[in-house]
Amino acid sequence: MSEPHTGNDLEEISEDECLRLLEQHDLGRIAVVVDARPLIFPVNYGLAHRIVTIRTARGTKLSCAPGSNVAFEIDDYASATRVGWSVLVQGVAVDATTALDDVSWRSREASPRPLAPGVKVHRLAISPTAITGRRFKLDG
Amino acid sequence: MSEPHTGNDLEEISEDECLRLLEQHDLGRIAVVVDARPLIFPVNYGLAHRIVTIRTARGTKLSCAPGSNVAFEIDDYASATRVGWSVLVQGVAVDATTALDDVSWRSREASPRPLAPGVKVHRLAISPTAITGRRFKLDG
Repeated sequence: MSEPHTGNDLEEISEDECLRLLEQHDLGRIAVVVDARPLIFPVNYGLAHRIVTIRTARGTKLSCAPGSNVAFEIDDYASATRVGWSVLVQGVAVDATTALDDVSWRSREASPRPLAPGVKVHRLAISPTAITGRRFKLDG
Repeated sequence: MSEPHTGNDLEEISEDECLRLLEQHDLGRIAVVVDARPLIFPVNYGLAHRIVTIRTARGTKLSCAPGSNVAFEIDDYASATRVGWSVLVQGVAVDATTALDDVSWRSREASPRPLAPGVKVHRLAISPTAITGRRFKLDG
């Protein structure tokens, strides 16, 4: 992992490192757009073959996301090192529960483990169009 | 604060308690929609009179959010108590930097302190249309 940039700017994180950060975490937030209004949900996720996958029950995410553009984000700030970063995955959501397309197949190698209660038998995968990240390190 | 619900369901959090949770935290995520695509940004925020306010530099948030629907979310999970919760603010963004409307005036009583570097002289306020929250407590 490259040394965080110091100073007053945001440093861009390469896609490879974004993927490593996604592999190392399991909680993020997904944004879906419903009637031109964005909504944000915290979700546990899994990653396989560059594809973020979540499990969900019937509801807003499952009824509105498939076929639509979504965003998925993780971030962290460590007060000890004063390093903060975020990774953003933009893409199109796919109902990968039983579908046979390539994204759905690959997504089923991920093992998202939802912490929130409820039976979540459906899988939502994000076919990525962009994976970007930014990081800063505060001086002092 | 009411006792968290135990069992396998999500409990709804009242708006009053959502506002208390928003007062007690300072880092959340804002979702804005650009060309029908949602984006998520981590942001430090302040709260005054039910209005979430962030500071920002010129960029995507400032050029795309004002006048549009946005979402703002905070969440937490404490492994010690096994309680997780999230609060979602839906509303319309207002460029409150110098505007004289009621929302902008009230928003200027908030003191958001951005941790990320950069000169952030603009203020973006969220005029809320809905403030909702959910919580779960895992058994065992």
